[in-house]
Amino acid sequence: MLSNSVKKHIKQLHQKKFRKQFEEFFVEGVKGVEEALNSEFDVVALVVEGSRRDDEPFASLIKKAEEEEVEVFFAGAKDLKDIKSTDTFPGVMAIIAKVEESLEFFDFNAPILALDGVADPGNLGTIIRTADWFGITNIILGESCVEPYNEKVVRSTMGSIFHVNIFESKNLEKTLLELKEKEGYLLSGLVLGGEELKEDSFKNKKQIFILGSESHGIKKELAEKLDLLYTIPGKGKAESLNVAIAGGIILAKLNN
Amino acid sequence: MLSNSVKKHIKQLHQKKFRKQFEEFFVEGVKGVEEALNSEFDVVALVVEGSRRDDEPFASLIKKAEEEEVEVFFAGAKDLKDIKSTDTFPGVMAIIAKVEESLEFFDFNAPILALDGVADPGNLGTIIRTADWFGITNIILGESCVEPYNEKVVRSTMGSIFHVNIFESKNLEKTLLELKEKEGYLLSGLVLGGEELKEDSFKNKKQIFILGSESHGIKKELAEKLDLLYTIPGKGKAESLNVAIAGGIILAKLNN
Repeated sequence: MLSNSVKKHIKQLHQKKFRKQFEEFFVEGVKGVEEALNSEFDVVALVVEGSRRDDEPFASLIKKAEEEEVEVFFAGAKDLKDIKSTDTFPGVMAIIAKVEESLEFFDFNAPILALDGVADPGNLGTIIRTADWFGITNIILGESCVEPYNEKVVRSTMGSIFHVNIFESKNLEKTLLELKEKEGYLLSGLVLGGEELKEDSFKNKKQIFILGSESHGIKKELAEKLDLLYTIPGKGKAESLNVAIAGGIILAKLNN
Repeated sequence: MLSNSVKKHIKQLHQKKFRKQFEEFFVEGVKGVEEALNSEFDVVALVVEGSRRDDEPFASLIKKAEEEEVEVFFAGAKDLKDIKSTDTFPGVMAIIAKVEESLEFFDFNAPILALDGVADPGNLGTIIRTADWFGITNIILGESCVEPYNEKVVRSTMGSIFHVNIFESKNLEKTLLELKEKEGYLLSGLVLGGEELKEDSFKNKKQIFILGSESHGIKKELAEKLDLLYTIPGKGKAESLNVAIAGGIILAKLNN
């Protein structure tokens, strides 16, 4: 059984304000927990469903956690109702300490992905996962994006949140213009009526590619400052592409 | 207020067996209903939230429906609880008669997208929406895919379900081999260890591109019969791509 204080703490981590206050978040499921334990993130504690502690892969995760001196708690069926964020608890969850976010950790020889107004957690998580697949680790989130430590975002990243550098900007426009000036990046973005995206659109690696929201695109003030405007040409009758799909198509080219 | 029989009918359409029995499904939201009214699909009835009947865009949708002799029902707040499929009812829903599915409606001069084991409704809907964006209208679903008239699939297509030809095969392997023999298509698919996807991979338009499930890929018996094997090369640490993202990257090239 979990103590009430542990239970309360985990429940609080379902809320953004407490994630901010404690500088922690949680990840559920074997894959995510495994990636967390293998990452540079500090795993604060593991919570394992007590009845499955001797089953694989849980037993191995517990062993690994103990080797790394991570505290392990065991939860009863009643506890799970309070702490889980999905219908079926996947057997294990980890509490993770956030790492410091800083542009200093960025690789300024590589492209940067910047997101403006990506509010859907599943889309953000999928974009982070896709960026990781294509080896894009520099990710800037604008002030109108969903918080990346939201449980649904974390889940959709499938562990990729532990592989990339995320910087949450409080003023995306300012951040991007500074990077342009100091590091020599070009600002490019997806807009209506831009140039058709080509295989060699990103030959110049010093690009910050900005993806806007599905319904409103990149905000006007920022769109006006872009150096390169791209479009993914459509041929059918659909009105728009899902933002994560547009991101996938871009990311597949961005690091070629 | 809705009559009990109408309410019962809509509630039944939340279930696959009744969608099959009545050969009907429903779509919620202004965009989807609008696309349905503008499509070749037969709209059986419109259900509008009574308190919003004089507001735009609902008033226009009602007018359009009446012009096309579509029956319009008005729902009270109490009715909505019974019929809606999302937390917040978007003001309007339409009951749609399924159209006949047949390979005869396919354009055999164009590529075909075939899906094997895409079980997540959101992913299937997003793939259909993306196919529509890129002008791919030939879509074959294997027997292990989620049903395309599922409300979550329909919602994720954002109206694109009304723009494409869907054929639900009861034996995907048989269907594809027949198309290969009779229509001269090559079978290509996304697999581990295939050839790197290139800009001109789909220069030959007579390809059926097969996308498998995220966790298991294309089923073995079918994968063994492919003529062309492709891979989307990754550079990072992510273990896999989301299936809709992989589909988006393929579809962007398939109809170029």
